[in-house]
Amino acid sequence: METITIKDIAKMCGVGVSTVSRAINDHPDINQETKNIVMQVIKENNYIPNNSARNLKRSDSRTIAVLIKGISNPFFSSMIKIFENEIQRKKYSFVLHRVEEQEDEIDVAVELVKEKRLRGIVFLGGHFTHTAEKLEQVKVPFVLSTIGVKENNLINKGFACVAVDDFKESYKMVDYLCKNGHKKIAIISSSISDESIGKRRLEGYKKALEDNHIFYNMNLVRTMREDIETYTMKNGYEVTKDLLESNEEFTAIYAISDSLAIGACRAIMEAGKNVPNDYSVAGFDGLEIGLYYNPSLTTIRQPVEEMAFETIKMLFDLINKKTTPDSKIFPAKLVIAESTRKI
Amino acid sequence: METITIKDIAKMCGVGVSTVSRAINDHPDINQETKNIVMQVIKENNYIPNNSARNLKRSDSRTIAVLIKGISNPFFSSMIKIFENEIQRKKYSFVLHRVEEQEDEIDVAVELVKEKRLRGIVFLGGHFTHTAEKLEQVKVPFVLSTIGVKENNLINKGFACVAVDDFKESYKMVDYLCKNGHKKIAIISSSISDESIGKRRLEGYKKALEDNHIFYNMNLVRTMREDIETYTMKNGYEVTKDLLESNEEFTAIYAISDSLAIGACRAIMEAGKNVPNDYSVAGFDGLEIGLYYNPSLTTIRQPVEEMAFETIKMLFDLINKKTTPDSKIFPAKLVIAESTRKI
Repeated sequence: METITIKDIAKMCGVGVSTVSRAINDHPDINQETKNIVMQVIKENNYIPNNSARNLKRSDSRTIAVLIKGISNPFFSSMIKIFENEIQRKKYSFVLHRVEEQEDEIDVAVELVKEKRLRGIVFLGGHFTHTAEKLEQVKVPFVLSTIGVKENNLINKGFACVAVDDFKESYKMVDYLCKNGHKKIAIISSSISDESIGKRRLEGYKKALEDNHIFYNMNLVRTMREDIETYTMKNGYEVTKDLLESNEEFTAIYAISDSLAIGACRAIMEAGKNVPNDYSVAGFDGLEIGLYYNPSLTTIRQPVEEMAFETIKMLFDLINKKTTPDSKIFPAKLVIAESTRKI
Repeated sequence: METITIKDIAKMCGVGVSTVSRAINDHPDINQETKNIVMQVIKENNYIPNNSARNLKRSDSRTIAVLIKGISNPFFSSMIKIFENEIQRKKYSFVLHRVEEQEDEIDVAVELVKEKRLRGIVFLGGHFTHTAEKLEQVKVPFVLSTIGVKENNLINKGFACVAVDDFKESYKMVDYLCKNGHKKIAIISSSISDESIGKRRLEGYKKALEDNHIFYNMNLVRTMREDIETYTMKNGYEVTKDLLESNEEFTAIYAISDSLAIGACRAIMEAGKNVPNDYSVAGFDGLEIGLYYNPSLTTIRQPVEEMAFETIKMLFDLINKKTTPDSKIFPAKLVIAESTRKI
């Protein structure tokens, strides 16, 4: 099939090439009727304007990468979808790059900046314990989005962050459980070595217990299994099955993500027990499935849309030098649903 | 912060630049101990080899785009994740591009091929009723993945397709419901104008009813609402609420996706009824959540991983001219779980 050129279109319309060009580029200096005819002919012949020279330049510079590490929490899918839309809307390209667990995301980022001549980066989720010196190797604007950062580490050092306060929000949930009479609250948390959101959420749990004068029982602290993908329903299911079989007493489970909480509910049901009559179950994130699950899930709802929009806004403000890096902490909401009860 | 050059590394190691280069490029002609020292110094100084000349060439040509139209079915998230991994593993870049509902994906593809000088394309999901002539405008190898294609249209015309037989699999589910005594089976389907998988699944439903001598009742054919995102839990929930309020009699609902089916279950429960005692509910896709939902969901499980791997394999075989375009139809599996029962 031969490729149609702008000359062919001009010929078919009986106008000059410059007129076709004006029609394509929405130039004001063209008769509306002529323009309509040209556009109609273009459409009928499936002609695609050849802007390769301009586009080459564009493809070299108008690219944003989103780097996501490991975790396949559906929470991130909603964010990625908004990133896609917003980046596309700004006529930039969007490259999604998954960083392997053992890779260093900063090294990957530095390499990608060179390869793709990126204009900006979003680091999404995952651990993040790099020093300021290391982060300074990234020579393009970037935003750390929903990444658990160590207190007094990055946030206060002038890097761009969008997040919730994982400590405070986790405290809110555990405090709610305590106030509803629960004294034996199990937690499904991340591994002890984790320095990211998992750790902050665990610290919130501990502090809430302490403030409610409840004994901190190490046997009720259950970490996700390392041989199963983390933050998944399957992981929550297996950990809860082990907990139930351990005969350790508890009245509530707080899982640090909704996916884990759903797995926990399923394990409880399969053991012939009821949520919330036998055990209350609470999650964290505010996934849509929590509303449709049976029972609907008590959770901490992160303002995922606002956070995603803010991430992109912040990134483009940095690219356009409209702002300097800053952190924005969003409040999350305790959503009380059917999966927890007063005892 | 100054950028470290290969010269700086050579100086620090007390070797020549060519030795550093050999170490980086894994050249056999270098002493192992020297290589170790060089790599150590490189690591300590966070030096990133500047391969920009080579990488420029790479970034121009080693890119695969995945075009996804409209639909935000979580089914696609699993596939995209595998695409990402596989494309990255082959040292290609992965660009995800969402095509708006009103856009023509072929036009978008043709434009992207020029802009990014793509090496290949995956068209994922969505409607697809283009003619062979139109498809031939795409000048790079491409695979149509899990796209409902019209019978005797594309599949038989030498385009690369990976899919399940939506007609046959849908028939399988409805036939199972019929054989379990259900005579009044509602379907949550796509709009009448839909020419893609939705239509094929609806046709399977009709044929199964016919073969089981069951009257086809138009009032039990419910289409997803157009004012709510399609294939979502919310859509299934609202459509089922309307169905329940219509007082039309039925004993089972077959939804053409698991997300829709979960919304249907929730609507039934909120009406004070039980799944499956009052109504059986069946889905299609085989999402992981179906296993953890309460009740667990009867569904048609598509072999999502195999299909995703095959899509990428097929694409790279085409790129490497190892094969000619062909279609591969995967069998799906009827999974009987707690949400349906014999009546």
